[in-house]
Amino acid sequence: VNARSVIEKKRDGGELTAEEIGFLVDGAVSGTVPPYQLTAWMMAVYFQGMTPRETAELTRAMIDSGDRLPVIDSPFLPVDKHSTGGVGDKLSFLVAPLVAAAGVPVPMISGRALGHTGGTLDKLESIPGYRTALEPEELSRQLERIGICLAGQSASLVPADRILYGLRDAASIVESVPLITASILSKKAAEGARALVLDVKVGSGAFMREMASGRNLASWLVETAALLGLRSRAHLTAMDRVLGRTAGNALEVAESVRALRGDGTAEDLRALTLALGGSMLDLAGAAASAAEGARRIEELWRSGHGYEKFLQLIEAQGGERKAVEGPEGLPRAGETLEVPAKESGVFLGLDARPVGEWIVEAGGGRSKAEDPIDHAVGVECLVDPRSKIVAGEPIVRLHLSNEAPRDGLERRAQRWVLLDAGSGPPAGGSPDPVLGVIDPAG
Amino acid sequence: VNARSVIEKKRDGGELTAEEIGFLVDGAVSGTVPPYQLTAWMMAVYFQGMTPRETAELTRAMIDSGDRLPVIDSPFLPVDKHSTGGVGDKLSFLVAPLVAAAGVPVPMISGRALGHTGGTLDKLESIPGYRTALEPEELSRQLERIGICLAGQSASLVPADRILYGLRDAASIVESVPLITASILSKKAAEGARALVLDVKVGSGAFMREMASGRNLASWLVETAALLGLRSRAHLTAMDRVLGRTAGNALEVAESVRALRGDGTAEDLRALTLALGGSMLDLAGAAASAAEGARRIEELWRSGHGYEKFLQLIEAQGGERKAVEGPEGLPRAGETLEVPAKESGVFLGLDARPVGEWIVEAGGGRSKAEDPIDHAVGVECLVDPRSKIVAGEPIVRLHLSNEAPRDGLERRAQRWVLLDAGSGPPAGGSPDPVLGVIDPAG
Repeated sequence: VNARSVIEKKRDGGELTAEEIGFLVDGAVSGTVPPYQLTAWMMAVYFQGMTPRETAELTRAMIDSGDRLPVIDSPFLPVDKHSTGGVGDKLSFLVAPLVAAAGVPVPMISGRALGHTGGTLDKLESIPGYRTALEPEELSRQLERIGICLAGQSASLVPADRILYGLRDAASIVESVPLITASILSKKAAEGARALVLDVKVGSGAFMREMASGRNLASWLVETAALLGLRSRAHLTAMDRVLGRTAGNALEVAESVRALRGDGTAEDLRALTLALGGSMLDLAGAAASAAEGARRIEELWRSGHGYEKFLQLIEAQGGERKAVEGPEGLPRAGETLEVPAKESGVFLGLDARPVGEWIVEAGGGRSKAEDPIDHAVGVECLVDPRSKIVAGEPIVRLHLSNEAPRDGLERRAQRWVLLDAGSGPPAGGSPDPVLGVIDPAG
Repeated sequence: VNARSVIEKKRDGGELTAEEIGFLVDGAVSGTVPPYQLTAWMMAVYFQGMTPRETAELTRAMIDSGDRLPVIDSPFLPVDKHSTGGVGDKLSFLVAPLVAAAGVPVPMISGRALGHTGGTLDKLESIPGYRTALEPEELSRQLERIGICLAGQSASLVPADRILYGLRDAASIVESVPLITASILSKKAAEGARALVLDVKVGSGAFMREMASGRNLASWLVETAALLGLRSRAHLTAMDRVLGRTAGNALEVAESVRALRGDGTAEDLRALTLALGGSMLDLAGAAASAAEGARRIEELWRSGHGYEKFLQLIEAQGGERKAVEGPEGLPRAGETLEVPAKESGVFLGLDARPVGEWIVEAGGGRSKAEDPIDHAVGVECLVDPRSKIVAGEPIVRLHLSNEAPRDGLERRAQRWVLLDAGSGPPAGGSPDPVLGVIDPAG
């Protein structure tokens, strides 16, 4: 086996063996296969694709490239959730503690903001003291003790993914479904998850704009997971509008705390928490079905057990409990700016992508990996979807730093407001944010 | 302009601008664009192709990456020939001095053995003292003085090609027609050639086995050359059988010397020398047509002016004149082995590819770039094509070192012998080795 012949085989449309794939992945980590061969191979994969078997072998080789957390001893399968990224997506803060409150281990490893979408780790770091970088032993101990962790990937897990992802990013090879699949699943399997709910976002605010491409990625994920012995289910969910009422790091943590306390939850956020949390309990073996799981999640939510578990998590990872309990403990913006509606009509939501792009520009996200983040920056929606609004009524509150440019900002924010210009709310209540559910064919 | 967006544009099938291509090529040389981005870009080119305009811009950027020899002052355009590589291809030793003898400057830059094919530089180095590495100033001075040089590419010419070709070789991106085109033409233009005859070999012993792929490469070469203001013509020539009577470094030099002296020339070698040399004189403006050029080449050959020019060249580059003049001056193999024909029939020639492969194995070529070469190793054909041979008659003489393995060698060499088992020579004389001629459409 040599790199040149393996690249050529893939370039010419061949199916690589486990040995050939392992040679490249091991070589990526040991340095014996140089980066210029790795990007040539991955660009060939971009054009020629991989079979499900190859994708599973790639995932296995990536898992084997580093440490693997022990699978925790529990009557239920340890379960995680992965989202492909959206704007205002704070679901992890709800589902992780709610599922853990049901006694199911939740070893959740999250990522950072990417492009116009937010990142769970960045949001968590708006909580004073919260540590997202835990060593594998700390993760395992915490998981044994309180049944939940919510942290970044540690360097010793799946080192091949960091190398390959860095090269894909630098060489414009990100958008390859088999490579995305292996990247996601390798991290989840290495952290000790045995079941996985996938939240594949679809729409103008998601990386997958088309339903067909979302469905394709979802199928690859669940089929490859099945080949790896990982139970999984994918939910295709709407990402055209900002999820919930806020977007921005500290604002989303605060909204999640209010929701867990039962202090008002946006409809879409509530529906997705029940759907994803219900599936997590189902896959973990803690509920007989997703529907039963959702009912269990609802009970744990109403009883306050989810919120308790959330506070336990924050404290376990060094966060200040009072910062999330009190009204003033999280970073607050130097200024806020209320934007009036330009027109009257029925409010549908805020256009997710331009909101996410503004947050990045205003310092609440990153243009480059090394950029610092202003956790207080964000957007708050002042009315709920399906409300009737009249022109001039405040509709959005921008949280921004004192130095942020204001030129044209009001007009820009007004363009985010999606209105139904008709005379009344659309019939049939709010649309279901779950667009489809995909289980492995097997 | 940044590398990531340029790679993405090509990956998605876009046409790159001169600025974008220049950015990558300049970055390759300066080191600001890392190798892993270059291979990703070139692999994307492999799949998406390039337009003729892009190919010309790439060639220009590569030429501009280094020094450029001055175009020599002459009533005729300086002309070169490029062959895509074959077995027994010693045409440069004939056409270069014959064309130079007509007063046309021939700044010929050649390459080394590649795969199963031989390299002009390696053959030249079988002449004691001959220097293939000349500095640009030496090349220019020699060209002014005797109108011919035959040397390797100097490091200061087209450094981008060395970098990009090295990466293509390591990352299995060699077989891309636009990249091959830019690589060939950039070197020819940088050395000061203003006209170029391309010998595109087609057949089982060539890199292009199919006529269609040879024709495609030939068209790319002449059309791109036209965009660069370089006059050119491509000849598609047969490379199924060993060209002439010998293959192997010193043996081919000796055969060329005999031919230039008028001491018997194989029919195919003679036909190709007249065709390519005639085109070179035509393109250089030293003949009104290729046919007139061929007649002029024939005169210069018969009169011994070609041989004189060859000796002048050898001396100018430090080679021992007596080594080529005398019968014993070139390296000779420790042993020779005569192989008898296994069957009777009409001899058609030696199968080029397995002959070339054996020469590499026996030490007369390279498996790795750093391998030394045994210049004496080679294969000599003892009968001419279209001769009737009888089983048991000696047909091939192998020149090999004392240590070369002999196991199965006779049987192996017998399989190289192509026979027409019919009763007499095929009608109509020997087939024309020129299969087609392609001029630019413009």
